[in-house]
Amino acid sequence: MLHSLPDKSDIEKAYERIGAYVHHTPVLSSKSLNKLFGADLYFKCENFQKAGSFKSRGAINAALALPSSLTINGIATHSSGNFAQALARAANILNIPSYIVMPENAPKVKVEAVEGYGGEITFCEPTLAAREKTLEKVVERTKASVIHPYDDYDIIAGQATATLEFCHEIDNLNILLCPVGGGGLLSGTALSASYFGKNISVIACEPKGADDAYRSLKAGKILPSVNPVTIADGLLTSLGEKNFPIIQKYVDDIVTVSEDAIKYAMKLIFERMKIVIEPSSAVPVAAIIENKIKISDRKVGIIISGGNVDLAKISF
Amino acid sequence: MLHSLPDKSDIEKAYERIGAYVHHTPVLSSKSLNKLFGADLYFKCENFQKAGSFKSRGAINAALALPSSLTINGIATHSSGNFAQALARAANILNIPSYIVMPENAPKVKVEAVEGYGGEITFCEPTLAAREKTLEKVVERTKASVIHPYDDYDIIAGQATATLEFCHEIDNLNILLCPVGGGGLLSGTALSASYFGKNISVIACEPKGADDAYRSLKAGKILPSVNPVTIADGLLTSLGEKNFPIIQKYVDDIVTVSEDAIKYAMKLIFERMKIVIEPSSAVPVAAIIENKIKISDRKVGIIISGGNVDLAKISF
Repeated sequence: MLHSLPDKSDIEKAYERIGAYVHHTPVLSSKSLNKLFGADLYFKCENFQKAGSFKSRGAINAALALPSSLTINGIATHSSGNFAQALARAANILNIPSYIVMPENAPKVKVEAVEGYGGEITFCEPTLAAREKTLEKVVERTKASVIHPYDDYDIIAGQATATLEFCHEIDNLNILLCPVGGGGLLSGTALSASYFGKNISVIACEPKGADDAYRSLKAGKILPSVNPVTIADGLLTSLGEKNFPIIQKYVDDIVTVSEDAIKYAMKLIFERMKIVIEPSSAVPVAAIIENKIKISDRKVGIIISGGNVDLAKISF
Repeated sequence: MLHSLPDKSDIEKAYERIGAYVHHTPVLSSKSLNKLFGADLYFKCENFQKAGSFKSRGAINAALALPSSLTINGIATHSSGNFAQALARAANILNIPSYIVMPENAPKVKVEAVEGYGGEITFCEPTLAAREKTLEKVVERTKASVIHPYDDYDIIAGQATATLEFCHEIDNLNILLCPVGGGGLLSGTALSASYFGKNISVIACEPKGADDAYRSLKAGKILPSVNPVTIADGLLTSLGEKNFPIIQKYVDDIVTVSEDAIKYAMKLIFERMKIVIEPSSAVPVAAIIENKIKISDRKVGIIISGGNVDLAKISF
């Protein structure tokens, strides 16, 4: 278990540890999108990851890092969806119970996936306060160990392995775009870009309707996400305390995008690349569409965070 | 140019000829779908093919097989969509004009793609008679060479290369499922399964609402497709004269599926595999869902024919 910011070898160790349990996901590209945007775009496709998102990396890494004295009564968390199923899957692999607190507005497909992995779900109001209070009660009852979805160094090290793979596969990326919600993926991405890349400019991409990370970075302190409204349901959470200083130090810039651009970006990726991505993953592409980042003739990496989309709620 | 049924070496030659112009597409699988259906399913993903479907194989093969005396005034065809853009793309590669007759109800995304490759489109009523008459007029004016979308041995040899790749990649497939419209893909698939596979049972899958191939095979003669109604817009056409005898000889069985099963199959593939497929490609999966084929514990290949879906028309 890590008690401080993951260094280069911590991330390499995490990569070794989780190798048998997660996919080495493909990096895809599209000539038609490169032509459209005038840059070389590389998409790290965590939508093809186990349980449909990068969260499987952090979840299994954190679960494997716990001593068995702490896993014996199972593991628990609160999550709006992708971490929920990733943790339920990790527990399933370790053959221990999992207890998941989910907001009552979580996408149906994510709820069903948690159930499929044998996770026990407790629903709550979609606020951070309600999630934490409900989780407290669940843990009191079960004595399970809490694994935080993003405010945890082993989680960060696990998420960082996606960009370790990315940097090893694509040489000399100039720019790396990553969505930001709680900051688990972003902090891990930024660390790996610094450890395994060469002068990569890491840019965080966030919906305007959930711009707590943008405001926090400008203010120099964590400002909570209050009543966020965005189709990108994975990015509703506030920044974590362990994530924020990493992001302050290792992320070069942050931009925000409109809901219309997110929807258009999602459609574009479906149509041109023939892959299914969730709205949160469309946020970096939306930033390109809205010309928020200068990418002309650069090698641009984009983290496609997941593919767990509630298709019934999407209209193109 | 082939003047008779492609033999094994004709298909190998087509594979060599088109290699520089088409993708060797990936074969994907899904543990969750294998568990759901109790079989080993392998998906040959022509949705990731150039111009979004297998049609790019046949189009470029047929165009390259023509002597330049026949390409000098360009090439022409009629098509409900995927062959249209595949042929426009082939002409674009050869730097010759293309003239495409399309039914006025063709999906917008396919019309735009043809325009993107520089093809000149003439719209007509969505009947075979109107298509053929309109094409005749276009050819009279332009002196272009007509390449039929499926009733052509070079087209058949080109489409057959997908299953050549498939058989070389996955050993000992027991069953191979393929959608059928005009029969270009199906006849090529069946030939390659016979040449490059070992006792593969090839099963054609067709929408109930466009069951001319089913009726034709039962009757022993080509029965036309009259007012077909199906979401699978790639499968509206009648069987070709060159395709039918190949299908009679090399295809083991044919099954039909409901529209509801096609829609459900499409959603299942989007959700579980995170890939975008067009309705025509969902037809073989629909046949599995409706228990039309015994696949228990078998190695089952499925040709995912394309990914050009008009997302605005789909509701999940």
